Amino acid sequence: MKGVTSFVATFSLLALASTFTSASDPSSLQDFCVALNSNKNAVFVNGKFCKDPKLVTADDFFFSGLNKAGNTSNAVGSGVTPVNVDQIQGLNTLGISLVRIDYAPYGGLNPPHTHPRATEVLVVTKGELYVGFVTSNPENRLFTKTNAIAFAGLSSQNPGVITIANAVFGSNSPINPDVLAKAFKLDKKVVEYLQTQF
Amino acid sequence: MKGVTSFVATFSLLALASTFTSASDPSSLQDFCVALNSNKNAVFVNGKFCKDPKLVTADDFFFSGLNKAGNTSNAVGSGVTPVNVDQIQGLNTLGISLVRIDYAPYGGLNPPHTHPRATEVLVVTKGELYVGFVTSNPENRLFTKTNAIAFAGLSSQNPGVITIANAVFGSNSPINPDVLAKAFKLDKKVVEYLQTQF
Amino acid sequence: MKGVTSFVATFSLLALASTFTSASDPSSLQDFCVALNSNKNAVFVNGKFCKDPKLVTADDFFFSGLNKAGNTSNAVGSGVTPVNVDQIQGLNTLGISLVRIDYAPYGGLNPPHTHPRATEVLVVTKGELYVGFVTSNPENRLFTKTNAIAFAGLSSQNPGVITIANAVFGSNSPINPDVLAKAFKLDKKVVEYLQTQF
Amino acid sequence: MKGVTSFVATFSLLALASTFTSASDPSSLQDFCVALNSNKNAVFVNGKFCKDPKLVTADDFFFSGLNKAGNTSNAVGSGVTPVNVDQIQGLNTLGISLVRIDYAPYGGLNPPHTHPRATEVLVVTKGELYVGFVTSNPENRLFTKTNAIAFAGLSSQNPGVITIANAVFGSNSPINPDVLAKAFKLDKKVVEYLQTQF
Amino acid sequence: MKGVTSFVATFSLLALASTFTSASDPSSLQDFCVALNSNKNAVFVNGKFCKDPKLVTADDFFFSGLNKAGNTSNAVGSGVTPVNVDQIQGLNTLGISLVRIDYAPYGGLNPPHTHPRATEVLVVTKGELYVGFVTSNPENRLFTKTNAIAFAGLSSQNPGVITIANAVFGSNSPINPDVLAKAFKLDKKVVEYLQTQF
Amino acid sequence: MKGVTSFVATFSLLALASTFTSASDPSSLQDFCVALNSNKNAVFVNGKFCKDPKLVTADDFFFSGLNKAGNTSNAVGSGVTPVNVDQIQGLNTLGISLVRIDYAPYGGLNPPHTHPRATEVLVVTKGELYVGFVTSNPENRLFTKTNAIAFAGLSSQNPGVITIANAVFGSNSPINPDVLAKAFKLDKKVVEYLQTQF
Repeated sequence: MKGVTSFVATFSLLALASTFTSASDPSSLQDFCVALNSNKNAVFVNGKFCKDPKLVTADDFFFSGLNKAGNTSNAVGSGVTPVNVDQIQGLNTLGISLVRIDYAPYGGLNPPHTHPRATEVLVVTKGELYVGFVTSNPENRLFTKTNAIAFAGLSSQNPGVITIANAVFGSNSPINPDVLAKAFKLDKKVVEYLQTQF
Repeated sequence: MKGVTSFVATFSLLALASTFTSASDPSSLQDFCVALNSNKNAVFVNGKFCKDPKLVTADDFFFSGLNKAGNTSNAVGSGVTPVNVDQIQGLNTLGISLVRIDYAPYGGLNPPHTHPRATEVLVVTKGELYVGFVTSNPENRLFTKTNAIAFAGLSSQNPGVITIANAVFGSNSPINPDVLAKAFKLDKKVVEYLQTQF
Repeated sequence: MKGVTSFVATFSLLALASTFTSASDPSSLQDFCVALNSNKNAVFVNGKFCKDPKLVTADDFFFSGLNKAGNTSNAVGSGVTPVNVDQIQGLNTLGISLVRIDYAPYGGLNPPHTHPRATEVLVVTKGELYVGFVTSNPENRLFTKTNAIAFAGLSSQNPGVITIANAVFGSNSPINPDVLAKAFKLDKKVVEYLQTQF
Repeated sequence: MKGVTSFVATFSLLALASTFTSASDPSSLQDFCVALNSNKNAVFVNGKFCKDPKLVTADDFFFSGLNKAGNTSNAVGSGVTPVNVDQIQGLNTLGISLVRIDYAPYGGLNPPHTHPRATEVLVVTKGELYVGFVTSNPENRLFTKTNAIAFAGLSSQNPGVITIANAVFGSNSPINPDVLAKAFKLDKKVVEYLQTQF
Repeated sequence: MKGVTSFVATFSLLALASTFTSASDPSSLQDFCVALNSNKNAVFVNGKFCKDPKLVTADDFFFSGLNKAGNTSNAVGSGVTPVNVDQIQGLNTLGISLVRIDYAPYGGLNPPHTHPRATEVLVVTKGELYVGFVTSNPENRLFTKTNAIAFAGLSSQNPGVITIANAVFGSNSPINPDVLAKAFKLDKKVVEYLQTQF
Repeated sequence: MKGVTSFVATFSLLALASTFTSASDPSSLQDFCVALNSNKNAVFVNGKFCKDPKLVTADDFFFSGLNKAGNTSNAVGSGVTPVNVDQIQGLNTLGISLVRIDYAPYGGLNPPHTHPRATEVLVVTKGELYVGFVTSNPENRLFTKTNAIAFAGLSSQNPGVITIANAVFGSNSPINPDVLAKAFKLDKKVVEYLQTQF
């Protein structure tokens, strides 16, 4: 995905189809269930516990700071600012969230990834981007458009992200390099080198 | 909801809670099901029929034109540009969509409404807005923030909109004015006058 | 909605369509999860905590008192007796509830409202009623029948109700009257008067 | 379930818990999708095709005739009048339906059954009934109340019914009687006799 | 359902259709929510509380022992080894589970039952079985194949089982025998005898 | 994932958590909706059209051939035999499917992949396997066990598969190699070589 290459705003949209996911969050059972972080006693539920409704205020539905660009001084040249249930507690049980994505000019990219719990729709506010998605086996067709991007809506309060290269080569205890060498048709030494890089 | 009052970008977010809805679209059963308009023979399904997957192209997931401001020369001073399954056929079965909302400066407003099939999250790109939502009976609490707005993500391919004043006073065959007079504590003549206005 | 006008029982049904909502409660994960009110420590979940299954009895699935008419001596001339998860704790996670609605003769009405989390089906046991619903934008068609009503089934354990006039003109902190004046094409003084009435 | 034993109306409710089911219909993707019977060309979808929305009228949401008692002159002494998507086409995609149940005095009963796609809530309008449900293995607890019943709301447009005795002993091609003899601890001849009765 | 009759492996599959159920578990809202048994304080939720994610290990997703045959020395001649959320805590919120079923040779059977929260698919690894399902009212058609079976996948973390004969004749407090006599067209004494057997 | 290393059957289970997915298929609205391939006129729906229920037979719920080993003479040394809605048409709308996986001895592997529409549970019938899954960002923890595998249940009628290496390096029109070089920290020439291999 090529980065921002000009100031010409080409506003446009591209729906990243369900190849890259298709879950829907469970429905809400009351007006709202503002997330309460329950780390103290280490008991959890699917999603989040709710704050006492009487103590809920407008600030529980509000996030300020999307005007700040994300830091793009990194290996891939992009910065993602998520606004999900961890930033806006009021999103809990509502099945939606947002991100802002900034790209370094000339080559910034958001590497191939999947969202295990959401579909995504992108809206361009400045620049041009190379954007696409690949369908599932056996066809693995690439659908692509050259476009710019700024904000993305996601159909889950907690979409999750799996950056493929990181999950494959940078997992917390490394995947057996023989497996990866065979799966990716790479020399085992290349795999072992990559495992030191991620 | 006060309109755009300055060029100062106050980027921020406000989740319109489920008081104003909470449906989740049925899940997708294949990579995509690009909507096919089947008006010819007037047979319909819940949602849309799908285009032959072999004929699908990247353009089915793309919409251009969100850089154009919506027309705000109307009674409420706002213009909404929807980007849902009718604009991007590829959104069918994916459970998400977007809108751009433009406000006339000094007083443009998007009147009280509900989305019967979606929750909404707003992202501000320019200006300041007065935004809020009201909870359900019996409390009807108003949660509100003064903010600006530009794009809104919605958790359905076809969120629907019910502008309350229009639905109540401007329905296609008019609601019995005696009912509305009593429900809204208005003089019947005021109701009848309003019914000529919407 | 005209009230009970005779004792002639005209048994009939009218489905209030999804314009007025369309959510489905999350599915149950065990035989039952009888709601436990957890107000003491002010910790909540989406829906309700469950009672210890060993302590559950038949009374948790039972409600007595629907033979009593609701009080209709009020401004709109109707009384609603809800039977949802707050009255029958055993309805928790089961996705269904009921109400009884009584109308004062000659003019009692249940004012325009939406259920943010349920669809509704009405069954008439005595009298005649004027019943209908309005579709979403841009058509806002009114579908209506003259019928009587007594009980309504709702497709959620906690359907919620938003009485439109109350939510718009009677919210807990008032909506800016300039906004309402413009949205409802009413004089600002009328709006301010209405805001004192609800 | 003992039938109507007196004219004393004991209005009450009993939720038939999810032991007897727990599905939720897929959500609606438009205001309504009035069912269209497509028997002509024998092509079907999950649920029903929809009628052209422009041809929909209020009658598509209406059913008349619930004032007529069901016929109780049969082996079990009860008559069920269903009002689901086959009676009110407008219920399609709305996830709710109703039935009226009449019981012959002194012994009419609605035999043990399950609804494979719905939970049920009963409302009593006349008489007294013995009503209950049994939990799943290994406990098979019986929850029961002596109550009267008239209408039942069901959380599906097409709840389905499996009358256990009929499904077990009266299936369209008979289940192997050796299997039933062993499963029900009955003499094989009793099984074969029962298979001639249902 | 006739038991294992030979060592000839006839690998095959039969989907037990939704007559015997059709629920779908609520979606997951994070990578996993490993079930935590919260019996101590007797507070429950729909499904299960989650273990602290930091304490989760691979063992939470693992179960050993499916190589052991289930005990078939019982009245019906079959043994079911379930592997659901109670055996693999990591299955919580994932909407799937398994069972191993062993049959005594010549006549072992898994008696007629329903799963109130799951559909089932069977895979044969050894022997031959008589397998089938019955559709709902009014047709009650029997679909059947002679096949062998070893493992069954179920579309819920906690499918539940209702063995019909046990639920009907062996409920924890017995169902009124007059009701069962009439429903099953059995002599009341036969019903009372059966109630002592289950 | 190391292949079969001995004949010692170590029966065991490992749930591939929702990192690798979490969708749930829409619920069924009738007893069954046996899939009908509608390729003739190239009109499709989400999932499949249904066969006329009157023409449905037991064969629509049956698949024979799982006793045949899959072909493992390929680059990764494994063969997957899917049994989903394309093999058993009766699985349509039932939300479940199966696969058989064969591994070549000493090194056969099923390469890293995701299922965009299903969770997976594995049951071991012969041999030993190295099995695991990686959590989402930012932790990317690897959960792993050494085990054997034979059948896998999947919580969708059409789970889909995305073999990561194929989707990334073998997409139908190739992804820009500059993007992949940066994302995977590989020399561009290595990327271009890999693109010729998949």
